[in-house]
Amino acid sequence: MGPAAGDGDRGPGAAAEHKVNLSARQPFVESVRTCLAETFFPDDPFRGLGSRPPAARAWGALKYFVPALEWAPRYTAGKFKYDLLAGVTIASLAIPQGISYAKLANLPPIIGLYSSFVPPLLYAVFGSSNNLAVGTVAAASLLLASIIETEVPPEENPQLYLQLFYTAAFFTGVFQTALGVFRLGLIVDFLSRSTITGFMGGTATIIILQQLKGMLGMKHFTPKTDLVSVMRSIFYYRHEWRWQSLVLGICFLLLLLLSKHLRKKKPNLFWVSAIAPFLIVVIGGVFAFLVKGDEHGIPIVGDLKKGINPLSISQLTFTDKHVNTAMKAGFLSGILALAEGIAVGRSLALVKNEQIDGNKEMIAFGIMNIAGSFTSCYLTTGPFSKSAVNFHAGCRTPMSNVVMSVCILLVLLFLAPLFKYTPLVALSSIIVVAMIGLIKVREFCHLYRVDKFDFCICMVAFIGVVFFTMVIGLSASVGLSVVRALLHVARPSTCKLGSVAGGDIFRDVRHYPHARSVPNVLVLQLGSPIYFVNAGYLRERILRWAEEEENGSKIDGQDLQYVVLDLAGVTSIDNTGIGMLVEVHKSLDRKGIRIALTNPRLEVTEKLVLSGYIKDIIGEEWVFLTVKDAITACRYALQRSRSKDDGEV
Amino acid sequence: MGPAAGDGDRGPGAAAEHKVNLSARQPFVESVRTCLAETFFPDDPFRGLGSRPPAARAWGALKYFVPALEWAPRYTAGKFKYDLLAGVTIASLAIPQGISYAKLANLPPIIGLYSSFVPPLLYAVFGSSNNLAVGTVAAASLLLASIIETEVPPEENPQLYLQLFYTAAFFTGVFQTALGVFRLGLIVDFLSRSTITGFMGGTATIIILQQLKGMLGMKHFTPKTDLVSVMRSIFYYRHEWRWQSLVLGICFLLLLLLSKHLRKKKPNLFWVSAIAPFLIVVIGGVFAFLVKGDEHGIPIVGDLKKGINPLSISQLTFTDKHVNTAMKAGFLSGILALAEGIAVGRSLALVKNEQIDGNKEMIAFGIMNIAGSFTSCYLTTGPFSKSAVNFHAGCRTPMSNVVMSVCILLVLLFLAPLFKYTPLVALSSIIVVAMIGLIKVREFCHLYRVDKFDFCICMVAFIGVVFFTMVIGLSASVGLSVVRALLHVARPSTCKLGSVAGGDIFRDVRHYPHARSVPNVLVLQLGSPIYFVNAGYLRERILRWAEEEENGSKIDGQDLQYVVLDLAGVTSIDNTGIGMLVEVHKSLDRKGIRIALTNPRLEVTEKLVLSGYIKDIIGEEWVFLTVKDAITACRYALQRSRSKDDGEV
Repeated sequence: MGPAAGDGDRGPGAAAEHKVNLSARQPFVESVRTCLAETFFPDDPFRGLGSRPPAARAWGALKYFVPALEWAPRYTAGKFKYDLLAGVTIASLAIPQGISYAKLANLPPIIGLYSSFVPPLLYAVFGSSNNLAVGTVAAASLLLASIIETEVPPEENPQLYLQLFYTAAFFTGVFQTALGVFRLGLIVDFLSRSTITGFMGGTATIIILQQLKGMLGMKHFTPKTDLVSVMRSIFYYRHEWRWQSLVLGICFLLLLLLSKHLRKKKPNLFWVSAIAPFLIVVIGGVFAFLVKGDEHGIPIVGDLKKGINPLSISQLTFTDKHVNTAMKAGFLSGILALAEGIAVGRSLALVKNEQIDGNKEMIAFGIMNIAGSFTSCYLTTGPFSKSAVNFHAGCRTPMSNVVMSVCILLVLLFLAPLFKYTPLVALSSIIVVAMIGLIKVREFCHLYRVDKFDFCICMVAFIGVVFFTMVIGLSASVGLSVVRALLHVARPSTCKLGSVAGGDIFRDVRHYPHARSVPNVLVLQLGSPIYFVNAGYLRERILRWAEEEENGSKIDGQDLQYVVLDLAGVTSIDNTGIGMLVEVHKSLDRKGIRIALTNPRLEVTEKLVLSGYIKDIIGEEWVFLTVKDAITACRYALQRSRSKDDGEV
Repeated sequence: MGPAAGDGDRGPGAAAEHKVNLSARQPFVESVRTCLAETFFPDDPFRGLGSRPPAARAWGALKYFVPALEWAPRYTAGKFKYDLLAGVTIASLAIPQGISYAKLANLPPIIGLYSSFVPPLLYAVFGSSNNLAVGTVAAASLLLASIIETEVPPEENPQLYLQLFYTAAFFTGVFQTALGVFRLGLIVDFLSRSTITGFMGGTATIIILQQLKGMLGMKHFTPKTDLVSVMRSIFYYRHEWRWQSLVLGICFLLLLLLSKHLRKKKPNLFWVSAIAPFLIVVIGGVFAFLVKGDEHGIPIVGDLKKGINPLSISQLTFTDKHVNTAMKAGFLSGILALAEGIAVGRSLALVKNEQIDGNKEMIAFGIMNIAGSFTSCYLTTGPFSKSAVNFHAGCRTPMSNVVMSVCILLVLLFLAPLFKYTPLVALSSIIVVAMIGLIKVREFCHLYRVDKFDFCICMVAFIGVVFFTMVIGLSASVGLSVVRALLHVARPSTCKLGSVAGGDIFRDVRHYPHARSVPNVLVLQLGSPIYFVNAGYLRERILRWAEEEENGSKIDGQDLQYVVLDLAGVTSIDNTGIGMLVEVHKSLDRKGIRIALTNPRLEVTEKLVLSGYIKDIIGEEWVFLTVKDAITACRYALQRSRSKDDGEV
């Protein structure tokens, strides 16, 4: 007979060497403060400020919000040398990329240049990354276009189309600032690396396909982005194909690929590949001007107006009819831009061992997008290609963005009309080469090898983008990621422990096949928080473990008499979870099986004590610090009850 | 100087007594199978079938889907005695409750009787609980009414209003069956106990308030359910108050409360409180007939048609205009009905030590609701009050539902017209007394004491229902619960471990204030899965722990040289999570700090090995089975490097 429940047997507890500290409490206010701080201030930005005098504290806080105050006073001519070089280099990249991505979004090319002028200035003041170079990005440009085009076709109403881009940029800015201010950076955390890999790969694929329009010198094209529509469109308008464009395009492509190859072979020559796009634009422009390309099958960019950004604040459109589209476009592209910008900033900072504050970055991105929407810019962020060039060119501070901005200013004031002759095919080949690097086949293989589910998430994004729309690909992949996260929560893993290393250490029997189980005792390890989502599952699962163990041990002629629950991995428990433990206790108790707990964490101990579970239901003497103590106690109690039985016989 | 990274030092690994099993693998197919089985078949319904011959297996599977085949062949006259008694008792409760709840939903009272005839028969065949008594429930009735009333006011178009109830029941049935068939019972898991407690309490409160209409004998009333509207409506129509109704109502209330009190004092007399509502209906009816109540301020139910349920299949409305309302009503009330029915079934089964299969119950509920919608019934489930009476009356099998059904059949065929004289005030007092028990003040206090956040979730549901609408209360509370679940995932707890009990055991220093930290070593315990949602947070947190420790140890004059990550609580890791560990390694490595891992679980070990993290980045010799081994190895390596330093000096 097993020991009867609630027989007041205080033996086992006494046998244990060390006890669980049942009286530890976190004061309520303190625990709420900690919880809020961990949730919203995981980086604890103001640490170390508390001890300083008020003026220093205010200055510290101001420096936190305006990082330029941190680096500007210590800025030296020595640093400027590096920043000047880096700034000029990225400016040479910003011109072709700005024009290209604006064309990709069906916007007037000049908007791309405008967008490389104002936002970098603001980022230099508010941004916290020393490596990020600000500009427009391909994926977000295409995403914005694909959403806004369904509402307002750019051919029918180019003015309204442009206005909606400004409005979307405004909403993006407001949204990003709000995320930063309310410390909600964790929303970006829901875009997993797998999602971004797949989404970027898919986007790069469809962008490359779309460049067939430019490469073939076509005039008509589908506004849709999916593979099938694009290919159909290309062959439908095959009478528009121009061999002149194609030949020129292939030459440009080869030049660009060569420069890229050069960088791989000789990293010191990175600047060749950095200015190659600019060279292509110049060479292409001169060539098109000389041969009168536009009359001979080589379409050119067309007129670019001289002068700096006009104000666009009066063009923001908040009418009922279009505001939803603008908000949707702003929200989605904003999330995407944040994810890219923050990831780029973080990975570059890591190399230099600097710190990036995600929430501060959001505020900086938000401010530059709001200001951008007032000054004829569309969405900007920190694109990977430009930032990497900035980094390799040896930038020291955000001053390189200022230099780039000044270069663009000069272009806008004096040189813009010269870019009129840039052949579209040059832009297309620049985009194609920029995009090729984003299809990371090696990363796909790595994912497949390491984690099949991550691979699925990645492929859903890729296939969704390539065959459906960008929004579908992105949301299906994020949805799948969130379902997976919730499944982790709803179906936490449990495992049976056996003793390894002579009985002192208890480990998963699946992991350590030589682990031996303890007679009459089932040791279960529970992981993850126990709460309402998984309480029902855990109850069934624990009872099933017990049932399986009973069936197994009946064959061996040994009763199951104790279930030891190892709670070390249980980080928290809620009311439903405690209710579950009570029910498990009742069910097992009816079969004469006792529950012992080992090593509950602070938060869990506190709640189990407060709810009376430990005192009234299982008894304080059945809570142990280690599994070993619990097993010792179980053996001791078993022996006592057996010798009692023998005595009675 | 700390040991240089990657110095190929194989010492520490050799010092450890036991090793982590790095070669354990789960075959992919096997792990997918296990994962799917745990997700959708946590109760493993067909266990034990595999080994039997095909015919027995088919019979076993059929018995699984039709539990009646399990108990019917072994049914005896002895059991029937008990079921007959229980069935008659619950029939006596079903009549007044059926009429009352139909009135609560503004439906013709006879619908309530219809709904107690067909569904119980079906449940007896497909249901797996021996204790559940099927019938309509107050909360879901009011919820349905509150949703459908906003679309079709019952006064304006009673026929369409009724049709939408049938249609909603149909959708409820389809939805419940689908959940059961696709094993999606876990959706119900997202309704936490706290949500249900608050929601039920709030619903009971507004239902009691609504009964003031019946108690005061009023004719006009607001269709809204919130406290403010109800109270305003009561005083607005105060000229309709009838003292006769009120006096009669108070008498009935006292009688019912007395019978309830009696049950508490003498549990054997439970049947008194069980048939009390029926007695009230009979006494009230006779009284109203004798004094011609309807002419003297005591409104009565009115005509009830003799005869069994007419077919309603042709009345289901799937027109574009109303189908959304019906679907919404069906979905929400279906979830609610499932949550109540399954919770009731489970808690009663627990007392008798029986098992309830949630997914099977869903299919049974679904079938009975679909069939119900074809035969003039509205939503039914297993209400708590009726099931508890069934249980106390000693039911043995679902046969008691058949007995109840036959009783209701007899009433429908012969006695229905007699209930015409039932005073509405009698129904109101029955509802009030049934609802009082659902406001669980003691549970609220318990929640407040044990878990403040659970208390908030509960109060949001309560206040939402009482002051706004039932849908708002329910969804706000569920939303808050889900946010909390996601926060658990996004912000997992980490803690610093110190040695207790003489150095062999390592525990949270906040929990065990006497735990001593190890010089030069920081031991961190990570909990919960590491993946994309929390990877960013964990990186920041681990680095911040290290930074704090460095600052702390500088004061003591001791460098931080090792960070030991205890992964015992990490149940899984994804690709982003591994990337995070790589970044943490890089950041720490740059400061000359080494990472050691202890006790990774099977799933985690597998992925860390496959991704090359263990071999290429931290080195196999820095993975240990226990924290103690890791500390020993760190000390050993430290001593070696110190004696080397000394030697060099």
